[in-house]
Amino acid sequence: MITPHIARRMQRIKPFYVMDLLERAKRLEAQGRDLVHMEVGEPDFHTPEPVVAAGQQALAEGRTRYTPALGLPALREAISSHYTARFGVTPGASRVAVTPGASGALLLTLAVLVDPGDQVLMADPGYPCNRHFVELLEGEPVNLPVDRSSGYQPNAEQIEAAWTPRTQAVLVASPSNPTGTLLTAEQIEAIHQVVRRRGGVLIVDEIYHELVFDLPAHTALSISPDLFVVNSFSKFFGMTGWRLGWVVAPKSYLDALGRLAQNIFLAAPTLSQYAALAALGDETLAIAEQRRDAFKERRDFLLPAIRGLGFDVPSPPQGAFYLYASCSRLSDDSFRFVGDLLEQAGVAIIPGRDFGNYRAATHVRFAYTTGLDRLEEGVDRIRRFLGG
Amino acid sequence: MITPHIARRMQRIKPFYVMDLLERAKRLEAQGRDLVHMEVGEPDFHTPEPVVAAGQQALAEGRTRYTPALGLPALREAISSHYTARFGVTPGASRVAVTPGASGALLLTLAVLVDPGDQVLMADPGYPCNRHFVELLEGEPVNLPVDRSSGYQPNAEQIEAAWTPRTQAVLVASPSNPTGTLLTAEQIEAIHQVVRRRGGVLIVDEIYHELVFDLPAHTALSISPDLFVVNSFSKFFGMTGWRLGWVVAPKSYLDALGRLAQNIFLAAPTLSQYAALAALGDETLAIAEQRRDAFKERRDFLLPAIRGLGFDVPSPPQGAFYLYASCSRLSDDSFRFVGDLLEQAGVAIIPGRDFGNYRAATHVRFAYTTGLDRLEEGVDRIRRFLGG
Repeated sequence: MITPHIARRMQRIKPFYVMDLLERAKRLEAQGRDLVHMEVGEPDFHTPEPVVAAGQQALAEGRTRYTPALGLPALREAISSHYTARFGVTPGASRVAVTPGASGALLLTLAVLVDPGDQVLMADPGYPCNRHFVELLEGEPVNLPVDRSSGYQPNAEQIEAAWTPRTQAVLVASPSNPTGTLLTAEQIEAIHQVVRRRGGVLIVDEIYHELVFDLPAHTALSISPDLFVVNSFSKFFGMTGWRLGWVVAPKSYLDALGRLAQNIFLAAPTLSQYAALAALGDETLAIAEQRRDAFKERRDFLLPAIRGLGFDVPSPPQGAFYLYASCSRLSDDSFRFVGDLLEQAGVAIIPGRDFGNYRAATHVRFAYTTGLDRLEEGVDRIRRFLGG
Repeated sequence: MITPHIARRMQRIKPFYVMDLLERAKRLEAQGRDLVHMEVGEPDFHTPEPVVAAGQQALAEGRTRYTPALGLPALREAISSHYTARFGVTPGASRVAVTPGASGALLLTLAVLVDPGDQVLMADPGYPCNRHFVELLEGEPVNLPVDRSSGYQPNAEQIEAAWTPRTQAVLVASPSNPTGTLLTAEQIEAIHQVVRRRGGVLIVDEIYHELVFDLPAHTALSISPDLFVVNSFSKFFGMTGWRLGWVVAPKSYLDALGRLAQNIFLAAPTLSQYAALAALGDETLAIAEQRRDAFKERRDFLLPAIRGLGFDVPSPPQGAFYLYASCSRLSDDSFRFVGDLLEQAGVAIIPGRDFGNYRAATHVRFAYTTGLDRLEEGVDRIRRFLGG
């Protein structure tokens, strides 16, 4: 067997470290161990019943053929109307591209923007796939280190300072994964101004949009028609396995997005698109809001609880379902710490290095995607593990 | 409004010309015109009932969360077993990666193989998206012109002659879209030997696998464990809108494929995966075979009929649901010819230029994805249009 040729980019596309951990977790569970799962980036709630019913109806009606490349016209219209009803801004259906997951939206968006060697600025820590999309396209992801000093979010000054002639785009996320922190409308506006002045393009990841607890959600679409907003039916609408997302793009990019979607996706899954029409209806929205309240309740329990254990969470997360915590008082090797926690305490969380390099060895991410009783059990186990 | 920055690759990623045609067709139909659709690359049959029922059951059971990145273990196992039962070769579940459509399989495969500047050899005419996947990855698609002299398929000598130090992979399709012609096992083996001797990798597109009429289907997996085979639930299994495909890869690539799939897809749609388990069952296979026989019956009508109209089809298609015909006796501008046929005769077919450059102006593709009665009507209309 000769050594296989593998494209160079694959050396730069790392696995999620958590995958190893999940393998170990699976082995432990196969041995009968009970684990508290605080690692999973997927809501524990099922898809809301009205969405499931719409999926069943679509199946019964035989909706199993391709849709247009950028999605069902009715769904693109419904997404635009959702922004009108909830945020008072109307992008218009023609600016909405429906995609296979937000993953598809990120791939399309970066593919129409990024040439080989182009730099894309993004927060470190941040969603690990983002830098890999840029690597796939032979661009260069550039990390903007963020920490407590800026609420774990990049700011306009930092972006200005990091700009080079090769910078093409900036990708920010609000709420952020892994930190759960937000950018205010004013902060996004300031970033957008820098980016436009420099001749670049701003992409705002709103994948956790509407999963916001202490204040009303806003959307970057209100700021300008001149930026990209990526969103998903996965998180707020509880439709992870349906693989459906969207991007709202500046008008001048829709032709390129459509051309690329035709070629690399054909279209997003048809059933998911019909089901998603129900996701934007009042009945599902009421369910999604109840769930958001449940996530808030979990955060309100978990945040003080882990602070009490010695974790440091300087910027209280106001959205998503994550806590990004410094464990520097407990360990300076979060990867090992997380492994020990799994093996010895039976609690699964994720080490900082899955989200970047900056201070990764002293950070971990907790996901509150399990019920309050399990979160309490997890906290008890960590307390015993720490000898408290 | 400033001119938007669009990545250079988008200049090389062309739209399907047929899209314009489809727009014009839609306008004509909105005006009340009846059209015969012989342009669509999607079976007219609904998804088989057992698959729909499995989808409904999966929904009822709440199977709406993420699956592992490379697919449900049971589905990977079932795909491997399908090869055993029908073709006597057992790749093993670990070599099967389940993907969002064959599109996802092609993207993953090319992304782990192709570095910027690498050449990928492929037939012209061929499936237009293939060259665009290579463009997306900054590789260079190299056309191998094929015609009647080789059954519209590339051969080993041609590949040998086209090889350069930058050649990394060869992509062949059997049955081919748009020509419907096959490569024999011996031909694929000869190609594989050249490719391996040169240190490259062979990718075999079997997206229309089992849609083969005059002889038993074979699979390139029987030839070597050292090549990539891409397949899909869309065509033979009638699951287009479900967006589900797979690739069987050499063992040494599975780690890279998994890493990439995690990052750029997360996973294929969950419901589709559960439904596909039923696609590989006896009941669905019996339905799929009946449909294959219906496609054969259509080909057996359409092939002599269009020959009788003056189209030249030197290599009778033995698979898929396409006829690739020379219209050189009727027109030397197939793009215009196809437009006239639509407007004046109410018949939609596709011009050669959607499939490449080589002799594209004298070729058209007919799809027999509509019933016999409509094919007869289409032939009558073309006859009248040609003044016959």
